[in-house]
Amino acid sequence: MNTFGNIFRLTTFGESHGERIGGVVDGMPAGIILDLDAIQQQLDRRRPGQGNLTTARNEADKVEIYSGLFEGTTTGCPIGFSIKNTDHHSADYSEIKDIYRPSHADFTYDMKYGIRDYRGGGRTSARETACRVVGGAIAMQVLDKLGITIKAEITQVGDCKLHGTEEEKAAQYEEIVSAVKMQCDTIGGIITCRIDNVPVGLGEPVFGKLHAALGGAMLSINAVKGFDIGDGFEGVGKKGSEQNDEFYAENGEIHTRTNHSGGIQGGISNGAEIYFRVLFKPVPTILKEQNTVNSKGENVVMKAKGRHDPCVLQRALPVVESMAAMTILDYYLLSKTNKL
Amino acid sequence: MNTFGNIFRLTTFGESHGERIGGVVDGMPAGIILDLDAIQQQLDRRRPGQGNLTTARNEADKVEIYSGLFEGTTTGCPIGFSIKNTDHHSADYSEIKDIYRPSHADFTYDMKYGIRDYRGGGRTSARETACRVVGGAIAMQVLDKLGITIKAEITQVGDCKLHGTEEEKAAQYEEIVSAVKMQCDTIGGIITCRIDNVPVGLGEPVFGKLHAALGGAMLSINAVKGFDIGDGFEGVGKKGSEQNDEFYAENGEIHTRTNHSGGIQGGISNGAEIYFRVLFKPVPTILKEQNTVNSKGENVVMKAKGRHDPCVLQRALPVVESMAAMTILDYYLLSKTNKL
Amino acid sequence: MNTFGNIFRLTTFGESHGERIGGVVDGMPAGIILDLDAIQQQLDRRRPGQGNLTTARNEADKVEIYSGLFEGTTTGCPIGFSIKNTDHHSADYSEIKDIYRPSHADFTYDMKYGIRDYRGGGRTSARETACRVVGGAIAMQVLDKLGITIKAEITQVGDCKLHGTEEEKAAQYEEIVSAVKMQCDTIGGIITCRIDNVPVGLGEPVFGKLHAALGGAMLSINAVKGFDIGDGFEGVGKKGSEQNDEFYAENGEIHTRTNHSGGIQGGISNGAEIYFRVLFKPVPTILKEQNTVNSKGENVVMKAKGRHDPCVLQRALPVVESMAAMTILDYYLLSKTNKL
Amino acid sequence: MNTFGNIFRLTTFGESHGERIGGVVDGMPAGIILDLDAIQQQLDRRRPGQGNLTTARNEADKVEIYSGLFEGTTTGCPIGFSIKNTDHHSADYSEIKDIYRPSHADFTYDMKYGIRDYRGGGRTSARETACRVVGGAIAMQVLDKLGITIKAEITQVGDCKLHGTEEEKAAQYEEIVSAVKMQCDTIGGIITCRIDNVPVGLGEPVFGKLHAALGGAMLSINAVKGFDIGDGFEGVGKKGSEQNDEFYAENGEIHTRTNHSGGIQGGISNGAEIYFRVLFKPVPTILKEQNTVNSKGENVVMKAKGRHDPCVLQRALPVVESMAAMTILDYYLLSKTNKL
Repeated sequence: MNTFGNIFRLTTFGESHGERIGGVVDGMPAGIILDLDAIQQQLDRRRPGQGNLTTARNEADKVEIYSGLFEGTTTGCPIGFSIKNTDHHSADYSEIKDIYRPSHADFTYDMKYGIRDYRGGGRTSARETACRVVGGAIAMQVLDKLGITIKAEITQVGDCKLHGTEEEKAAQYEEIVSAVKMQCDTIGGIITCRIDNVPVGLGEPVFGKLHAALGGAMLSINAVKGFDIGDGFEGVGKKGSEQNDEFYAENGEIHTRTNHSGGIQGGISNGAEIYFRVLFKPVPTILKEQNTVNSKGENVVMKAKGRHDPCVLQRALPVVESMAAMTILDYYLLSKTNKL
Repeated sequence: MNTFGNIFRLTTFGESHGERIGGVVDGMPAGIILDLDAIQQQLDRRRPGQGNLTTARNEADKVEIYSGLFEGTTTGCPIGFSIKNTDHHSADYSEIKDIYRPSHADFTYDMKYGIRDYRGGGRTSARETACRVVGGAIAMQVLDKLGITIKAEITQVGDCKLHGTEEEKAAQYEEIVSAVKMQCDTIGGIITCRIDNVPVGLGEPVFGKLHAALGGAMLSINAVKGFDIGDGFEGVGKKGSEQNDEFYAENGEIHTRTNHSGGIQGGISNGAEIYFRVLFKPVPTILKEQNTVNSKGENVVMKAKGRHDPCVLQRALPVVESMAAMTILDYYLLSKTNKL
Repeated sequence: MNTFGNIFRLTTFGESHGERIGGVVDGMPAGIILDLDAIQQQLDRRRPGQGNLTTARNEADKVEIYSGLFEGTTTGCPIGFSIKNTDHHSADYSEIKDIYRPSHADFTYDMKYGIRDYRGGGRTSARETACRVVGGAIAMQVLDKLGITIKAEITQVGDCKLHGTEEEKAAQYEEIVSAVKMQCDTIGGIITCRIDNVPVGLGEPVFGKLHAALGGAMLSINAVKGFDIGDGFEGVGKKGSEQNDEFYAENGEIHTRTNHSGGIQGGISNGAEIYFRVLFKPVPTILKEQNTVNSKGENVVMKAKGRHDPCVLQRALPVVESMAAMTILDYYLLSKTNKL
Repeated sequence: MNTFGNIFRLTTFGESHGERIGGVVDGMPAGIILDLDAIQQQLDRRRPGQGNLTTARNEADKVEIYSGLFEGTTTGCPIGFSIKNTDHHSADYSEIKDIYRPSHADFTYDMKYGIRDYRGGGRTSARETACRVVGGAIAMQVLDKLGITIKAEITQVGDCKLHGTEEEKAAQYEEIVSAVKMQCDTIGGIITCRIDNVPVGLGEPVFGKLHAALGGAMLSINAVKGFDIGDGFEGVGKKGSEQNDEFYAENGEIHTRTNHSGGIQGGISNGAEIYFRVLFKPVPTILKEQNTVNSKGENVVMKAKGRHDPCVLQRALPVVESMAAMTILDYYLLSKTNKL
């Protein structure tokens, strides 16, 4: 269950404060010249310590690749990689080691496994997503060759839908998150992801519908609580006549006039832009007192210390893109088996 | 990709107007006395022709079970079953056989496979979900023994959130859907599903988070375009301090005071009620003229005939419950392997 | 675990004396015109009651196909099928229902599941292999289009290696098996299977080596206890210099001068003929008295009644070919994803 | 395809002359205190450079474990590990980089992927099996808690069946292999593996028969060309009456008087000792001239240099045990889901 995908597969390992996190990319097509800098750039986008609104934890997050490449080109063999955890402040966690932090996974892990690495959230830390970014960045380089592009952006923070230019949106984001940080609180929001130039025909009926795969992928990201595609929840009031996408033919090509479906019909890509929304809840770690329980079953009061993000949306962008990239590539490879 | 699940697995086959639909349930625990009537009752809830608001297609939908039972008790061997398609009006479809109906899967299937059974939507028909109901009804009988209950209900039709008693909600549903039917149009909405008495500890980090599995399962149902859990999209404005679920201990048990998380934390059930929303788009088949394209790439005008649902929510209830039941049972069985 | 394969997948169900056996073929490429008679012919080869050396049980074994075809051509959708069990003599088994037959699975099933369908061996009956023959016959029609051929033959019965023309071999087989039948005993032997025109490049390192997949497939057939490829166990005395297959180039093509490897090197097909041996133990049901134990744990003496094969080799031929065909097709489809 | 197992899963990566080889163990039960020295000891048994009959390549082969442990105890999270490749003599290979060595995978890899890491065999090198030994050594520690023991031994070298005491067998092995080495040749043989105290009930019908899983696992080891269980090929002459294992009851327990079946009946363990044979072909690298072809399709003559094993049997013992251990643990965990 630490493996994602069918043909293109990512297996990850590692805890927040262990020695290394890492993984294995399997099913990578042979013959692709890998740009290692591009992988590192995606990792850097996810890296903490890049501004005053993300955690101050400063890790180099340099990925080391061990296999699957020969003179820079993929060989079809599995790509093993790891990232060193360099900036441990485990001491920050020792005093909460017996405390079940509200809306964290401390309690559920303890109940499930009878043991957990409490340092920095252990396996449940979003640090694990760095490995997804490596996998995704590798997948993107294949999609690139196919002309497929993926772009995630923050479209809503808390109740506020961002609007205007990229710059204006960035300013709105900064402003809201800064205010929340001042309150020692956290905030969630919505990331919208757009995938362009997906060929017609990706998606496997019936349980492997493309949006089911994308939804499952997104919902596996830490703090994600919702997913919709096309008009989604916001279109719930529209009737069939308002939500149907009529086809038209032009110059021998078939397109839809509208794209309420979000580029997928019957679970299969129709060539239009795929777009979907991913809902992130607020980070549960807040710098306020909270009532909770410890592992002895005693009611206690806790207050988090350490460095924490008031909002993860910015850092989650490459993670959303990565899960999308791996899903699309996996289904692209699967689709090659549909006909002889 | 016509198989769902890891340990408890359902494989389905069949087209809307073929001879039979059916499937195989694998991984069923041995020693469960199966109540066949209960399976049929779930199927009957999904069956068309039950009122003036569902399609008039009247099929007996009697499930035949071929294997996996000995004197009424499950043996641990796979349960093969099928349902006869008894009420074909294939002729209704012959005149649209070359037409790509808007927001249906005709176009995408043709592009993907180069061939499709156009009659009644073939494999893309929601008729396939009858097989899921069989699988789900079998899973439910195991969950029953574990004390786990699942209940889906319609909470929103179009823009209208249903309220009041069950009777009042039913009346609101009838009224809205009748009005839409009069307009020869269709309408979507939201089903909320609640799962109670789930033991703590179901869910497999990191890609097998329980809500990722539930989300993927729901998004694989025909016409589903969105999923959220707990507060979901409606809670997007709440801060961390408002959305966190504080723990408290009482009589040696640990619970949360609130349940914004929807019963799952870190991807693992925490013992609280699991609840989530499933968004259905309007059925794309409307009894109005629509512009579209045929398989020769010509622009044409079409108008659907035949019998069609103005709203699928009522019939989708047992499908949602079934996918939930199979997911929960599958993860229950998986959780048995977490410790020696 | 009742599913075989990765991309091309067969799921089977059914017990010897249940109502029906059957299955689902998933991952079938679209656009193949299926010859249903060819499927039936393979089934007929496996069918009992064809001579005085196979069980007298006479079943029509007519396969009914329910889905996945449109006007005779595969659509890429799953192919559901079933076969009626028409010739039950369950009464033959009632008196041994509590007896653990030596070297049968009665005891192990009872211990594993706590319940079993004792009639005719239930799920453990080789009758299940009829479903494999259906899956294999479908796969063969795809391989046919690729020019790949598969042929299994009996090469050894008991200690006796068959030799000479096909007719002579058949006579030797008849003679040995007749003699064994007279003794109320049973005999095993070896089937050799040859696969020709396999393209270079099938097989997935490292755990999915092509011969590992073939071996696992063969060992899953009832009564199979051994598998080897190329020179196999008989070549154990040869040194590296005697067993290596030297390459040579001719007319721009690369071949090996010898084929000790059996057509697979490093787990990947090299274009030479693939050949392997499959060892069948004698059928455990003998018409002699045997000491054994009943389900109450009492020592008893039993003697089988009913109709039983003195040797399964003849009927196993299409089963071996079928498992080979499904494996090769599965790996052919997988190989399409190795490069972009 | 670089992942092995269903619940307990090993994913490996790495080439012979890359920077590191390694892998991820997933599905490890939580709460097991891991003895890291025991893992290293198994690795040391497989390590080259231990005598004058194995390759002189001297690698520390120290495994580094990155995750899945907390204070020495498994947490149920994936165990990432790697081993540094310290002793590269890549130059030894540069002159054969374009040559397809007979009975190696150079040709098939090149045809399949269009590219390969020729240094030391790249991914096809048996060096990959070091990762299997890590996975197996971890699995063994769980089996240990269950009382299950696994022991592989060399029973035949070339034509010669070893006999006598362990010491005598070792002397025979030394003698034969030394003689072969003098001839600049290589030799194969047979390893017999015995697994004791396996509980009744492991094995999943029908495609997941326990011996099919074991066979597939063994056949995935480099140079393995055959597998049989119980009497196997050597018992082919025995009739049913001679090969059946009669049951008897004693002190409330049921056992078989003989064990021709090798501890598995109907694909499920019966509580008796599981034993099977694994056939290894001679290493294809011989220090003699051989005719072959280069990647330009030219006929050439080659002679291997570098350090090579005349016989791999000794070093393969922990690999066989490891694959057995992982298979048995995987099926043990699966069997926990057979009943509620």
